[in-house]
Formats: sequence, C-alpha cells, structure tokens
Amino acid sequence: MSDAVTAVLLLSCADQKGLVAAVSDFLYQNQGNIIHADQHTDQEEGVFLQRVEWELEGFALPRGEIEAAFRPIAERFEMTWRLSFSDAVPRIAVFVSKLPHCLYDLLARWRMGEFQADIPLIVSNHDDLASIAEDFGVEYRAFAVTNETKQESERQIAELLDEQGIDIVVLARYMQILSSDFVARYGHQIINIHHSFLPAFAGARPYHQAHERGVKIIGATAHYVTAQLDGGPIIAQDVAQTSHRDAVPDLVRKGRDLEKVVLARAVDLHLRQRIVVYGNKTVVFD
Amino acid sequence: MSDAVTAVLLLSCADQKGLVAAVSDFLYQNQGNIIHADQHTDQEEGVFLQRVEWELEGFALPRGEIEAAFRPIAERFEMTWRLSFSDAVPRIAVFVSKLPHCLYDLLARWRMGEFQADIPLIVSNHDDLASIAEDFGVEYRAFAVTNETKQESERQIAELLDEQGIDIVVLARYMQILSSDFVARYGHQIINIHHSFLPAFAGARPYHQAHERGVKIIGATAHYVTAQLDGGPIIAQDVAQTSHRDAVPDLVRKGRDLEKVVLARAVDLHLRQRIVVYGNKTVVFD
Amino acid sequence: MSDAVTAVLLLSCADQKGLVAAVSDFLYQNQGNIIHADQHTDQEEGVFLQRVEWELEGFALPRGEIEAAFRPIAERFEMTWRLSFSDAVPRIAVFVSKLPHCLYDLLARWRMGEFQADIPLIVSNHDDLASIAEDFGVEYRAFAVTNETKQESERQIAELLDEQGIDIVVLARYMQILSSDFVARYGHQIINIHHSFLPAFAGARPYHQAHERGVKIIGATAHYVTAQLDGGPIIAQDVAQTSHRDAVPDLVRKGRDLEKVVLARAVDLHLRQRIVVYGNKTVVFD
Amino acid sequence: MSDAVTAVLLLSCADQKGLVAAVSDFLYQNQGNIIHADQHTDQEEGVFLQRVEWELEGFALPRGEIEAAFRPIAERFEMTWRLSFSDAVPRIAVFVSKLPHCLYDLLARWRMGEFQADIPLIVSNHDDLASIAEDFGVEYRAFAVTNETKQESERQIAELLDEQGIDIVVLARYMQILSSDFVARYGHQIINIHHSFLPAFAGARPYHQAHERGVKIIGATAHYVTAQLDGGPIIAQDVAQTSHRDAVPDLVRKGRDLEKVVLARAVDLHLRQRIVVYGNKTVVFD
Repeated sequence: MSDAVTAVLLLSCADQKGLVAAVSDFLYQNQGNIIHADQHTDQEEGVFLQRVEWELEGFALPRGEIEAAFRPIAERFEMTWRLSFSDAVPRIAVFVSKLPHCLYDLLARWRMGEFQADIPLIVSNHDDLASIAEDFGVEYRAFAVTNETKQESERQIAELLDEQGIDIVVLARYMQILSSDFVARYGHQIINIHHSFLPAFAGARPYHQAHERGVKIIGATAHYVTAQLDGGPIIAQDVAQTSHRDAVPDLVRKGRDLEKVVLARAVDLHLRQRIVVYGNKTVVFD
Repeated sequence: MSDAVTAVLLLSCADQKGLVAAVSDFLYQNQGNIIHADQHTDQEEGVFLQRVEWELEGFALPRGEIEAAFRPIAERFEMTWRLSFSDAVPRIAVFVSKLPHCLYDLLARWRMGEFQADIPLIVSNHDDLASIAEDFGVEYRAFAVTNETKQESERQIAELLDEQGIDIVVLARYMQILSSDFVARYGHQIINIHHSFLPAFAGARPYHQAHERGVKIIGATAHYVTAQLDGGPIIAQDVAQTSHRDAVPDLVRKGRDLEKVVLARAVDLHLRQRIVVYGNKTVVFD
Repeated sequence: MSDAVTAVLLLSCADQKGLVAAVSDFLYQNQGNIIHADQHTDQEEGVFLQRVEWELEGFALPRGEIEAAFRPIAERFEMTWRLSFSDAVPRIAVFVSKLPHCLYDLLARWRMGEFQADIPLIVSNHDDLASIAEDFGVEYRAFAVTNETKQESERQIAELLDEQGIDIVVLARYMQILSSDFVARYGHQIINIHHSFLPAFAGARPYHQAHERGVKIIGATAHYVTAQLDGGPIIAQDVAQTSHRDAVPDLVRKGRDLEKVVLARAVDLHLRQRIVVYGNKTVVFD
Repeated sequence: MSDAVTAVLLLSCADQKGLVAAVSDFLYQNQGNIIHADQHTDQEEGVFLQRVEWELEGFALPRGEIEAAFRPIAERFEMTWRLSFSDAVPRIAVFVSKLPHCLYDLLARWRMGEFQADIPLIVSNHDDLASIAEDFGVEYRAFAVTNETKQESERQIAELLDEQGIDIVVLARYMQILSSDFVARYGHQIINIHHSFLPAFAGARPYHQAHERGVKIIGATAHYVTAQLDGGPIIAQDVAQTSHRDAVPDLVRKGRDLEKVVLARAVDLHLRQRIVVYGNKTVVFD
C-alpha cells in the first residue's frame, strides 16, 4: 500500500510460448519498475493468467497511452485484459436487508480508509438499517420488494445506481435474489456473502441446516453473483470450529464474525485488482 | 492418560430435574474419585447427555457390581446408557481398498501405543495393500466385490469379523458401500473417513468436485456409517486452505494429511469413550 | 441467549469428593432448571472449577436470597465463588490511542445489541478518535500521558471511572502501560488485545518482529491485564496464515481483523460469565 | 505432478529492471514450455527471487548444456542460483531419538512414493527405534552422545553420511543439538521440526511451557537448522486449538499430529525445489 500511483494489468488467454517474455519485455522497454508480478497456468484448461503492477512514475509512457501501446500484444495473444490505476476510486453501493453486522463493518472500514473506494449509497428492501446510514452520512434508499413489485423495484434500483455512477454492488446479507437481467448488467461487479462454506448449505437458513446436520465446522463464502443462486465464482472462504454446545443462535453469533471478515476480504481483493475470473472460478493473486 | 483403571459412564435421556444430583450422589455415596465429568443439554430437543469417569481404585463397589447398582437410577430416568472400563482392549478391523495412507497411519499409531485397541485384521476388496499388512504382522483378507459377489462377500466378511471377535470397523478409504444389513449389525461401531467437508461433495471423487467448484478450502470428515451414504453422524472434521495453484493432484496430496489425521482423531475419541450419538448427531466430550 | 433471566454461579476450590453432589443437590432441592453446567478438574493442581446457570423463574429462592442460601456450601468447601444474574448491565470504558479498528468494532457490536453491557465512556491518550465517539454518542476523554504526567493522569482516569461507575476496562489497542496500582484496582476486569500470538512477540511492534523472524502464521491474543506486561491470563487467541508476500503493512492489515474479532470474543465471554481465572490461566466454559 | 522431466531454476539477486524479461526471453528463445513460474520482490530489502520450471522435452538445449547457457545471464545480474531436475533422487538421513511418530510418518510416505527421494539411513543417539528401521528395511545406526563423546560421535556421523552419499538431513524429533561445524557442512540441507509455534517456546519442553503459560493454541514449526538453536529460517508452521481441558499429555497427543504433518510438508517443499532462503527467511513458492 505504497502511496506511489501504480498501473495494474490483469490478463488471461490461451497458454502459449512467449507470453511472459512479451509482457515483461513491454515493461522493460518502457522502464517499468515492477512492484508485483504473479501468474498462473491452468495446465488442464490450457489457460494462462497474469497480474503485473508497476509504478507510473518513471514509466516511459504517460498513463493515457499505455492502453494503446499494449493493445498489439494483447491482440497477438488474444488476451482478455484490463488495465487499471491504483488511484481510481470506484463507487460502491451496499445492499442490505435487516442484519447490520456486515454493513457496520464495511462502513467502518471505509471511514478508516481501509478501502480505496467510496460508499455513497445503501439500498435495502427494508427500513430497518436507515439510522446506521444516517450515522455514517450515507444515502439510504428502501424499496419494497414483493413478487408483484420486484421487477419494478429492480428497474428503479438500476436507475438509481446509474444516476449515482455505481461501479460495484456489495450484497451485505441482502435477502433478495437479484434477477438474471440485473446480474448481467453488472458482470463480475456484484459480490455476495453467503453464510456457509459453499457448496454446503446453499439457499435459505444455512445455520439451521448446519445445526441439523451436526457439522463440526461452519463457514462463510464470498463470491461473485451469477444467475445461479449461490453458485458464482468463489473469492474467499473461512471457517470456525463448532461443537455440540453451539445451538443455532451460537452458530449465528460465531458466523457473524466470519461473514463480515470474509466479505471485507473479498471486497478488498476486488478493489486492489487482485482477482481474475475464468470459467466459474477465481484466480486470486494475493 | 493416567494408568489407573477408570470406569466411564455415558448416558442420555430426556432432560429433567434431579438428573445431575442423582448421578453425582451415586458416585459420592460410593466414594467415587471423579477424573472427568462433562454434560450437555440440548434445550431444543430436551435431551440431556453426560459423560463421567472415575477411578476404580477406592470406589466402594467392585467393578462387577457397578452396573447393577446404577441400574435403578438409569431406569428411574429412562436413560440410554453404557458403562465401560479403561482397560478394555477392543478389536478393530480396518477396511481398505487401494490407497494406503490411512492404513499406514492407523497401523503406526497402533504400534506406537496411541490406541487402546488391537488391530488383528485388515479387510480389502483388492490385494494391493497386502504387503503393508505383512510388514506390520496383521492378517490381510481380500474379497472380490462385484455386483454379483457383493452379498456373498459381505456374508463372508461378517463371518470373519465374528470369528475374530471384531468390535469396531474402521473404513480407511474403503471404496465400497456396505449394505444396510451389514451396517445395522454394527450399530455405531463403523467409522468412515470421507475426503470432503461434508455435506459438501458427498459421493464420488470429492477432490474433483472441489476443484471443479473452485473452493478455497478443502476438508475431511470422519463419521459413523449409517444406511445413508456419507450421511451418518459426524465425529470430526478439519480443513485446509487451497488456492488456484492447486490442481487435483495437489488437493489429493493436501487432503491425504487431513484424512489420516481426522480419521485417527475419530477413532481415538471413540476408543476413549468420548462420543454419544443422538439423533443423527454426536456429542463429543473432549 | 434466551430472554429468561438466569443466575450464574462460577466457583473454584480444592478438588474434593462430594463437590458436584453438593452443588447439584442445592439446585435440585430448590427446583433449579439448569440451562448450562460445565466443570473442570485440573488434576495436577488439584483444583476444581465449575460454572452452572439456571433459570430464576420457578426457582424456589428469590434472587436476593440465593447468595445467603449457598454460602454454607461455599464455606464448607472453601470455594472462591461469584454469583451473577443475566440481566445485569455492566458498564465498560474503552481505552484507545490512535488506531480505530477495535473501537469501531466494539461500538458497532454494542449498538447492535451483541453485548449485554453499556459503553458510556472512551478514554484515550490522544484526541484522534474523538469524532468516532461523537458519531456513536459516547463521551470521549483524552488525557495527555507523558512520563511527567502519567501518575497524575492515571489518578484522574481512575476518578473518572469511579464517577461513571465503570465495571470493566477494555484496552482496544491502547498504547500505554497501566501502572500496577491501577491494574490492581480492577482485578481481572481489564481486558487487553495484543497483536501477536503470545508469548511470541510480546512488547512493542509485534508485526515488525513477526516479519523480521519470517513466521508463516501471525496471531492475536486477548488477555486479562496484570502487572506483568503482556503476561496476564490468556482468554482467547486466533491466527492467520501469512507468506513471504506479506510485507509489514500486509501483516497489519490481516492482523487488524484478528485483533478485533479476538478482542470482541474475549469481551463477550467475560460478559456472559464464561471465564474463571486461576493461577495465571483461564478456564473458558464455552 | 506430471511424469515429464522438468528443469527447475531457483534464483535470487538484487532487484533490477530487465530481470524477468531476461529470464523469460532465455526460455522463450529455447522453446521452453513453462510449467510453473512464480516470483517475489522484497521491496524493503530490494531483493528479487524467482522460481521457474519447464519441460525438458522440446527444450532446445540438452539438459547438460542448460547451466552453461544460462550462466551469462546469471552473471550479468549477479544472481545466486540453482538449477535442478525433477528426476533427481536425493538421499535423506533421518535423525531420531526416542519418539517414533515423525519417523513412522516419513518412512510410510517414502514407501508410498510421496517423496521423490530415498531414505537409506536412520541415525540416532539411542537404540529404541531400531526395530522400526528394520521393519522398513532401512539401516539404523546408533551413536552414544554424551558431553565427552559428542565431538567424536559427530565426526563418525559425518563420515557415515559421506559414505552413504547423504544429501539431506531430517531431524525427526532428534533431541541433540548439532555443532555449528556440523550444521555448516550441510548448509540449508538440514530440516528440523520444533514442537511449538516458534519463536514462542523455543528450547526444551515446549508443551510444558505452553501448558504453564495457558495458551489457547499450540503449534509446530519446521525450519532449516542454523547455528542458532530453533532460530533458523522457518519453512512451515501449523497450529491447533487447545483448551483448559488439555493437560500436558493431551498437548503432546495433539501436537504429534501437527509435528508429523508440518515436518513432512517442509520436506516435500524442499524436495520439490519450492524454497529459496534469503537472510534468515524462506520464500516458499507453493
């Protein structure tokens, strides 16, 4: 977390010889001072993925010309790629329902400067958490979501996100399923926290399911949202030990800490451009 | 792990007032020197469970009379209960297929005296691991198991277990499903290791399933075997972190260590009379 | 976390026969409906410790008479003991310096009702975090602490705590060492979070020490404060994996989440009367 | 764990521009099919470290000429470097005293083919474990080590290791301190397991120290041996939760599983050429 502004290149493509040489040569020729570089080859799928980060200061190309200069290499290897800069400040909307612990945690982190992002908006299907938003000086918008109103509410929410220039949506225990249309609009820019170690206990009431099954470990999973419920690419997971002494309220209590830490870790990795999605998986360059 | 011989009482019954007082009074009246006592009340189910262990030396009742003396209390509270002694040496049969890591681990622990038990017999559906049995001086019996021969093989195995006076069956990566008849004969005396954090990835090839799903954590689960595949009461679970760098062979490699440690922990807890099963769950008094 | 009011008895004494029988008989004779009971015998030290919790409703003794009724038993066995009630609302003062993450976390938990306690006061040796206190409507008092002013500041702080009727002090990354006089006034009612897995890296700058040593795991430790720096009875610890990729700022980032979760867990255990201290250790009846 | 033979290059040097480009260009020019590549820059120390692994089949240079061809690059950047091949089979001597669990585990892994290595020799300062060596068909040599004989015994051991062509020494709970001369002979080819999460509880009887301190977590640490007792570069660590219920024998029991798994993981990483030591730390490219 140096203060110097850096450029980050995330890329993936079919594995082929000369890839690393081409990218590293591009940086070398332009005097790039590499801060972080990591790569991964999925041998089975024949996919190559890379993250490279270098300082803008001293780089031969001004920031506005990097993309154009790199494009020929990207095209030669048919890369999927993204260039970003460490001083960008994306705008996050947090979606909540009635449970406040993840919301409090995200807002406190934002206030403490842990996230390189803004949180200008909280969206909910209930009024319950409005006062927290007020304490933190963030706009809070509640939309009644019933079977009848769902489509219209989503339309209004999408409009609101557009108006506010929202880049990333974080579902912080938001107890509504987003339509596949809504999800599609945001690509891999919607992060959800599910309160189980997926794929165990997908769907409703995972702590009740866990208690019923008598597991000795509970977990939490942060993932990108896709059209398949609780089925998107997993970003981060963590677990905690439990025992027969833990009734459902104890699992809920222990789980809250997992949820908020795992969700924040996923948001942090996303903001620091550490994640590449391919297929239904993530590569996390931490 | 004192060398003094102890008695262990494991009991469960409907929760009711006076239970603890009755059991503790019984021990106190007979000069019982309590070494370990633990209890649990499942408030939802209204079930009370207890483990109490005391030294035989100095106890007013000779070991042969304890059961009869305690029976009136057990009947008054309609307890399910079991009395055992720490110098018992139950006989274990280990069932294996082709993978040796859990077998090696169990045999080495037995040889080192970690288990208060004997392992006189290894049963397999393949010949592959016979030489390991030989190295450790344990009888190895292979039974071809195909759809046609399965019933007959199980009959022969059951006969063999009877002849050998086997008390406990440990499935150490045994890749055959036991019939519900066979399972029923042994009650909660069959322990299996499954190579995932159940209920995730039940059934075949869990490491492949885990890799496919892109989880960031893998696990292993030891459980009592019931008629429902991978569905019995969970005794112990553990997990390990993984990343995109782990291909299936890496998951297998990391998972092996989880499997052998978790299985051995379950066997150890079982042998030390630390487990009470109720419903489809365990209470582990560790 | 039922809403019914309960009584909690925490006791310790020399191990002797008849202890459990005496306590359970006392509860049984008075119609006590036991909600939770746990006990531990330290065989080496010959110490017996117990926690028992029962519902006040239906108990034969009114709450004001329980203490007197139990006293004869306590005296007979020479117990150290404490009786408390689940509807008590102790008052916590949080001590901070410049780092806000533990403070934010404690205040949010308090606001969400996770703690059965009040937090009316924040004490600091700096002004930095005053605005957070303001956001949460809590009094914030800063006292300059230098070598010259330390004694006088502590005197003023102690006076303030008395005025405010503070029961518990939580050091949430408070970077000053309290005098042994101050510590003695509060007995085991001061909880500190240290940002290492003690006893490794006691003292200053533990993340720098950890990085220097090249450990693969970092940790956090919550403990009762005693006159010996970072040497008091440990309540809770947790760890996180690290790697060579983690520079000091990364350790700080990962460590923050450990610190706040471990500190909150310790405060929660303390408030729920789950801890007995004996010697320089804790028994945590969770 | 493909069966194709690969070359592995491990290198470190002062960080400088053009490094990655030079190495990747070398491989690209010679048609190297890269299987694994990872790198790390220690920004504070200004050190660059890299691991790259590629298939020999299809590489333009025969295995015998790679070293000479790479040398100019290594010299240009003043690298410390090592080239190795995945079909090498280094020879390991395991040093033990009286505790067998790590020895059993290493021998079983070797027999199962988990290690790409041979274990032709066990060295001990006691006779106790000779029969295990016999079961596995490995030579066992005991040397009495007292203050008087230590120097002479070490001389004889060193001679024996030379005769046997030993490459790597694994201290599997070997309870003797090796002289700095002996350690110096083997560079970073001696791996030790210490039964605590170092730097906590270095030296003798760590489980007793841990019990005395009342920690809630115990650990094990595998490290390269240096002249400083328990102070060498850490390779791997793991921990397990404990509670007040765990007396010293319980810590020993839980710790055994940590020790053997952590030691084996370190040996495995070493054998797969995954570790670079720099300063008193390791970079583990897993």
